[in-house]
Amino acid sequence: MSNPVCVEVTRGNLVESRHRGSIVAIDGDGKVVFSAGDIDRGVFPRSACKAMQALPLVESGAADTYGFGNKELALACASHNGEDEHVALAASMLARAGRDVGTLECGAHWSSDQKTLIHQARTIDKPTALHNNCSGKHAGFVCACCHQDIDPKGYVGYDHPLQQQIRDTMQSLTGAVLAHDNCGTDGCSIPTYAVPLKGLAHGFARMATGVGLEPLRAKASRRLFEACMAEPFYVAGTDRACTKLMQVAPGRIFAKTGAEGVFCAAIPEQGIAIAIKCDDGTGRAAEITVAATLARFFEKDGAVHAGLTAMANKSFRNWNGIHVGDIRPASVLTA
Amino acid sequence: MSNPVCVEVTRGNLVESRHRGSIVAIDGDGKVVFSAGDIDRGVFPRSACKAMQALPLVESGAADTYGFGNKELALACASHNGEDEHVALAASMLARAGRDVGTLECGAHWSSDQKTLIHQARTIDKPTALHNNCSGKHAGFVCACCHQDIDPKGYVGYDHPLQQQIRDTMQSLTGAVLAHDNCGTDGCSIPTYAVPLKGLAHGFARMATGVGLEPLRAKASRRLFEACMAEPFYVAGTDRACTKLMQVAPGRIFAKTGAEGVFCAAIPEQGIAIAIKCDDGTGRAAEITVAATLARFFEKDGAVHAGLTAMANKSFRNWNGIHVGDIRPASVLTA
Repeated sequence: MSNPVCVEVTRGNLVESRHRGSIVAIDGDGKVVFSAGDIDRGVFPRSACKAMQALPLVESGAADTYGFGNKELALACASHNGEDEHVALAASMLARAGRDVGTLECGAHWSSDQKTLIHQARTIDKPTALHNNCSGKHAGFVCACCHQDIDPKGYVGYDHPLQQQIRDTMQSLTGAVLAHDNCGTDGCSIPTYAVPLKGLAHGFARMATGVGLEPLRAKASRRLFEACMAEPFYVAGTDRACTKLMQVAPGRIFAKTGAEGVFCAAIPEQGIAIAIKCDDGTGRAAEITVAATLARFFEKDGAVHAGLTAMANKSFRNWNGIHVGDIRPASVLTA
Repeated sequence: MSNPVCVEVTRGNLVESRHRGSIVAIDGDGKVVFSAGDIDRGVFPRSACKAMQALPLVESGAADTYGFGNKELALACASHNGEDEHVALAASMLARAGRDVGTLECGAHWSSDQKTLIHQARTIDKPTALHNNCSGKHAGFVCACCHQDIDPKGYVGYDHPLQQQIRDTMQSLTGAVLAHDNCGTDGCSIPTYAVPLKGLAHGFARMATGVGLEPLRAKASRRLFEACMAEPFYVAGTDRACTKLMQVAPGRIFAKTGAEGVFCAAIPEQGIAIAIKCDDGTGRAAEITVAATLARFFEKDGAVHAGLTAMANKSFRNWNGIHVGDIRPASVLTA
């Protein structure tokens, strides 16, 4: 059984490309309120679960000890562009724990955002680990270790105490067993675990609602979501989908992308969360799918619905600015 | 009916992403020798058909008049990186017809190749139409016009005499009717026409074999293929799939990519051509699919088969150089 077409790319009068995927929206009790495709298949959440991975930073008290506000917590949940503000804040987070870029184990890469890359090429010789899109998450990891008197050395390893904390946290949230069997290595070198899409969404719905969570975890979850919603630039950056989705309805939508076509989102006021995976792993399809799925839950809120619908229906213009086609949600999402 | 999975992306022990598509290999007589998926659906060839679009340049005598050798003809068929050599040669082609960058109507864009973009950011203020990946094709268009005493102004338009020549040429090669109905606008502003994948491959098989072509067209086709195979750097650039596929078997494989997951190739010595379209439009899937399809035709030629198989099976390493997964052809291609 193949997953349904979720996104169509048109050119002229024809559909040029098609993206398939699976979608689930679920509440804190685990009730599925919308779905399409196979939602039980294991999916690597990749960076979409960074807010889950940031819970030990808050729950351990490290975030308080180091005086982290919304910007720092948003960056701890971020896949950022490597813009100057992101890089500076990651360095500042490390400094508060008496560490620097040398402690980061995420590796270095140039920005994948064209404008930022051009700026980087003109201002730096080569990128450091602070420019890595995951540097805020890793700075948060280092701080969580330091505050707990755990040696951060090797913090990306499966057996490191911090990864055990993260594994326990994510098992409890998603209801999935996380172990070597379903473990892969992420781009930034930490373990990533394939979990059913439904479990991933349920984990975010628990974070959004607090249903079934210890008070400490419910509070930490709320704090991380609120930080991301308050400082969406620090979760991604200029012109990025996560940032723009959260700007559409300030304080009402949490959204976080992951590599290979994953997107997670939550609507705390409605007590639901969403997880989507595009089979082919493309970001453009994931962005349209999550925006169109979110729009379904704001039909009674004209401005938010319009903003999300605009994000789910984009025109392609060529190098001369001529309109050549569109990218749009398919009928599974619009029916 | 969905097309089969052609490419799998793995992480750890699991398949993380999947790409579907259609594939056809055909001879000059139109006999399908290998296929998978729907090969009758209309597909925009995009840049994959640049060698067809370059035929008027050669057939009109313009290429001879302006003294174009293999490099210029390869660039006329190219989607290049915008490396310095590409930019300089496009300017030189225009100069031979007494024109300059001002005549180009393709628009300007930064290189989509990261290394080239970093170099461009450090050496130029902003890109011109000469940096456009299609600048060689457009320089060829301008030269074809000038030689035929056709005003190049508006040469990207559907009704311009040059586009009529190209339309006639491509109709004759592919056997498909090209008209407003199946016409879209390409990234570089010229018309692109959706044709059945089988017809697209057949057009390239006719070019590779000369079967059914007038002697002038058969000769021009051979000349363009030979130019691309002799100068594969000028068809794409450093580390690009088209360039590397042609370098695997010098003078024996022609290969050209197009946007949105299209790839065309020909093996003149075997009298066949290949066209593939990945449903989701991703380049990574198209590159694996075409390399694996080509490999099927070199099973008796160890070195070429090994080179193509290596291109069809790549490891992914993360920012720390750790092996995290692979991209590989699916069973429809390896069975």
